[in-house]
Amino acid sequence: MNYPNFVKIIDVGARDGLQNEKQTVPSDVKIELINGLIDAGVRKLEATSFVSPKWVPQMADNDTVLNGIVKRDDVVYSVLTPNMKGFDAALAHRDQFANYEVVIFGSASEAFSQKNINCSIAESIERFAPVADAAKAHGIKVRGVISCTVGCPYEGDISPDKVAYVTEKLVAIGAQHIGIADTIGVGTPIKVQKALDAALRYIDIDNISGHFHDTYGQALSNTLAALQMGVWQFDTSVAGLGGCPYAKGATGSVATEDVVYLLHGMGIETGIDLDKLVDVGQKISAFLGRQDGSKVATAILNKRKSLTVS
Amino acid sequence: MNYPNFVKIIDVGARDGLQNEKQTVPSDVKIELINGLIDAGVRKLEATSFVSPKWVPQMADNDTVLNGIVKRDDVVYSVLTPNMKGFDAALAHRDQFANYEVVIFGSASEAFSQKNINCSIAESIERFAPVADAAKAHGIKVRGVISCTVGCPYEGDISPDKVAYVTEKLVAIGAQHIGIADTIGVGTPIKVQKALDAALRYIDIDNISGHFHDTYGQALSNTLAALQMGVWQFDTSVAGLGGCPYAKGATGSVATEDVVYLLHGMGIETGIDLDKLVDVGQKISAFLGRQDGSKVATAILNKRKSLTVS
Repeated sequence: MNYPNFVKIIDVGARDGLQNEKQTVPSDVKIELINGLIDAGVRKLEATSFVSPKWVPQMADNDTVLNGIVKRDDVVYSVLTPNMKGFDAALAHRDQFANYEVVIFGSASEAFSQKNINCSIAESIERFAPVADAAKAHGIKVRGVISCTVGCPYEGDISPDKVAYVTEKLVAIGAQHIGIADTIGVGTPIKVQKALDAALRYIDIDNISGHFHDTYGQALSNTLAALQMGVWQFDTSVAGLGGCPYAKGATGSVATEDVVYLLHGMGIETGIDLDKLVDVGQKISAFLGRQDGSKVATAILNKRKSLTVS
Repeated sequence: MNYPNFVKIIDVGARDGLQNEKQTVPSDVKIELINGLIDAGVRKLEATSFVSPKWVPQMADNDTVLNGIVKRDDVVYSVLTPNMKGFDAALAHRDQFANYEVVIFGSASEAFSQKNINCSIAESIERFAPVADAAKAHGIKVRGVISCTVGCPYEGDISPDKVAYVTEKLVAIGAQHIGIADTIGVGTPIKVQKALDAALRYIDIDNISGHFHDTYGQALSNTLAALQMGVWQFDTSVAGLGGCPYAKGATGSVATEDVVYLLHGMGIETGIDLDKLVDVGQKISAFLGRQDGSKVATAILNKRKSLTVS
């Protein structure tokens, strides 16, 4: 079996993760979180969203967060900009970052698209097109993420053809990277490989990432299956931040720590210091008053305790 | 990739799982648990231990449990018999079961063997030899399980050669099946494959099982890696019963529900009704006052709730 030597982690905890936490997180806590991730070796991360604070009040402090975080030339900073209003606001920060990226979110499920963003898949692409055009005009990279690529809470199983269809559309309007998200975590290895294969008809292996939720505990086996296809970029969330809004108490994105442990255990480099990352995850979990969603963090923290005691 | 069409689950919850629970579980609850597993389609399970009640008080009711459970000709009932005294006591139940199996437990770690059973690996094999001989004389199958095949809490990494060594010894004294256990859950796919490969020098693929703990959340990726080698038998624990005695709060054996979900999602049959299994796991978890250790169970129970509400 051939595995990549290096995997790039895209930590989505500060945006995708916190967005799904009910409790308002102060800007300084978010800044500390992002700076901690960078210090631990994360080189690509979702920093915030530019969406209406009416819909996502948690991200209303996007300017403060972007102004406050450490700026490094070797880090890619992503922000979600679902429409032109968001893009224009995000654009004001372009010169602060050597590598700045905007993210647009499509869905492979018609029903999910309607319920989540009140429009059809086709309409959502039309809405994203000017954002992608404007990003191109300003030399900003565009990453597209496709939700519900394996299953949908409303439609059930999603056909890989739907994934291919949305990938083609997003690439056509200018997305240079596609994230394949199993939003409700129902995927298993063969299904996830089919979704990735479908996307790979329209995007190459160096511009695709896996984004697997761990709701059914399957995220790491899906990650392994994706690695075996040559996928080498994964969207993960420190401490498993972010619940799944469709199932109370269920887990959201796979924890970055768990993925990093898997990779390091297989001799695959990430550039991340796992111990530092555990500390970052533990700190934000303590702030939120939630259990750390990473099994690796729990195990490492227990091990540290037992070493301290004896 | 070639996957097996069918996987046999060996549920160890009633023995390996409950043994690690501090709270004494009444015999009727154990009997209901085992009967529930059989009703859900489990066809091989660890029912109890014949060890000194001084060391494992939880299993002191072994006679009551074996007398009370449903007997079916298509189910394999395993009991742990680490010495002749245990074997003699277990032998009294032989005629109750069409498929009765005794289990002996070795370790691939010298330090773990010393700490766990107060003797060297070589001494433990000598101690097991008369048990295996007696089992053979009575036509009872012997299953050997090897602990710490990837890592040890005292020694750290374990060499695959150690796994090969213990496998050879156990097979030599008469073990007909070998379980490869990652007792502290530190394994990742390539390491687990190396441990399995080492054992396969001395036992064939149809007589080996994977027994992966989920302490670091890696059990399902290790299961996938083992499946890809042709391994088609796995020791799992309903509701993830059984903590890890070496790390407080950490998880033990991988939950049967999570493995079954993985397999069914990949089109691999197990003969198990997942919904029934979730009910069995939920019932014993409620009795123990612990959270169900299966992510699949948590997700399915949440889904049922949301369907009931809407």
